Amino acid sequence: MSMRETLVVKTDNEKFEDWQNALAGCDLDIINWDCVTNRNAVDFALVWKPPPGALAGFPNLKIIFSVGAGIDHLREDGVLPPGIPVIRMVDELLTAGMVEYVLFHVLRFHRFMPQYEQHQPAHFWQPIRQVPARNRTVGILGLGEMGQAAARALASLGFDVIGWSRSEKTIEGVTGYFGPSQLDSLLSRSEILVCLLPLTDQTYQILNAENLAKLPRGANIVSAGRGGHQVESDIMNALDNGQLAGAALDVFETEPLPGHHPLWDRKNIYITPHIASMTVPASSAAHVCNNIVRYRNGEALTHVVDMERGY
Amino acid sequence: MSMRETLVVKTDNEKFEDWQNALAGCDLDIINWDCVTNRNAVDFALVWKPPPGALAGFPNLKIIFSVGAGIDHLREDGVLPPGIPVIRMVDELLTAGMVEYVLFHVLRFHRFMPQYEQHQPAHFWQPIRQVPARNRTVGILGLGEMGQAAARALASLGFDVIGWSRSEKTIEGVTGYFGPSQLDSLLSRSEILVCLLPLTDQTYQILNAENLAKLPRGANIVSAGRGGHQVESDIMNALDNGQLAGAALDVFETEPLPGHHPLWDRKNIYITPHIASMTVPASSAAHVCNNIVRYRNGEALTHVVDMERGY
Repeated sequence: MSMRETLVVKTDNEKFEDWQNALAGCDLDIINWDCVTNRNAVDFALVWKPPPGALAGFPNLKIIFSVGAGIDHLREDGVLPPGIPVIRMVDELLTAGMVEYVLFHVLRFHRFMPQYEQHQPAHFWQPIRQVPARNRTVGILGLGEMGQAAARALASLGFDVIGWSRSEKTIEGVTGYFGPSQLDSLLSRSEILVCLLPLTDQTYQILNAENLAKLPRGANIVSAGRGGHQVESDIMNALDNGQLAGAALDVFETEPLPGHHPLWDRKNIYITPHIASMTVPASSAAHVCNNIVRYRNGEALTHVVDMERGY
Repeated sequence: MSMRETLVVKTDNEKFEDWQNALAGCDLDIINWDCVTNRNAVDFALVWKPPPGALAGFPNLKIIFSVGAGIDHLREDGVLPPGIPVIRMVDELLTAGMVEYVLFHVLRFHRFMPQYEQHQPAHFWQPIRQVPARNRTVGILGLGEMGQAAARALASLGFDVIGWSRSEKTIEGVTGYFGPSQLDSLLSRSEILVCLLPLTDQTYQILNAENLAKLPRGANIVSAGRGGHQVESDIMNALDNGQLAGAALDVFETEPLPGHHPLWDRKNIYITPHIASMTVPASSAAHVCNNIVRYRNGEALTHVVDMERGY
């Protein structure tokens, strides 16, 4: 019987080998989810969307690592065995990817690129007067690792950045709104609204008709948290009636977005296939290994999820 | 006879009133180019593309201000009367606009957005593996006010930024290449090439087949200096044969880009109507007024162009 600990890895892309290579220095047996023979030997699980009941099949599990920053995929009934700490993914490249995605889409709306994209096929040359970034208010829903980083990057470009989170947070150069009572104040000012919230009972379907109606008329939204934040029929209605001018959606109620879905053909919706931020094993492995080393040393784990709160 | 000095303003957009308002505190008579009655009374000219001979018609001219950062529009034969200092436009918002434009297009290429833009109408869901910014080399041609600011912004996002300029410049986080002999070294490394050069005899048609062939195969270019940098037929050929994957063009050999021009219909060219960076009178007036005050006080002017050098 091996004295080495075992980590089982379940990812939905072909990244098992990447994880194996990236974690090579962590003194572990690393096993593909589909190849486990001895369930009793599994100490740690690194997972994305495990099926209900499966994790409970490892009786000696000590830590569950989420492959992604969000842990909503672990909150479905029966997925999570009780009493085992869950660690969310935090990584410099994961955050950097989201900052890139948010900057790209905010700049696209800010600089009227959707209009120029429509002018080009019409061979229409029409400069539109530039708006200084300081006169453009960008609202960020969610001020976690990614929301804070995006807010800072936008503020450094001179945007008027406002942010909303459950609990009070202080970020230099960002006006903060907190809790359910201040959501409307943020919405009423957000010319470009960026959703980077965790998906919880409180944030489920937050991008609904009622909330979209509180934005300034002709606002744009950038949604890169989870599809569960969106009521996609409400977003399409808001685009149809001019309340929204445009939307950039990276997440969807159903993923992959079904081939027949009407969102695909909307000219004022920019669709990407859940790529805003992707976990890169070579970079993220350190976060996993650090916590395994902490466990071995009897130290407190980092970034443990409060499953009640949802992040 | 008025003791006040007179500034004549020639812009090609409807910005005369904006300039008048923005310069209201400068203790000047501000006159529209088309409404000058007493040519002898004109002391200063703020101009964009003045016709040959026209500036010579103001016998008491002391300073010529360019409305834009580039002064190539003043270099045509007979445009510039001899011996009068020319001041190029330098302004925080002018620079910020260019940084926004460059970030938008670099992020678009970096994050494979052109591919996703093609996938959407095909209803095709296909995530593409993210490349960390540190593994993406962006080459900046021209390290003036705008090139330096763009280089810094890209470096702060973690890109591998390299830059090329006529004379040696040191920018933190940016690898510098200098002079004609080092151009090829920069080109051979630039996965995304950004042209922000001034237009001079040395930089005319720098984006030609010979230089494009030196880029890594499948490179992307972002051209926001002047149309004179481009050989547009060479750019189209490089796109056709795969040497270039994409191009973002804000400037053109002929502007406005003629309605029948083949560039408009290229799927891998992103066209904007010379809007990357636009002078905002409310912001830029301070630069003009500061120099007028310096002139009144007998102090040295700032940002005087070396017309021989071309910037």
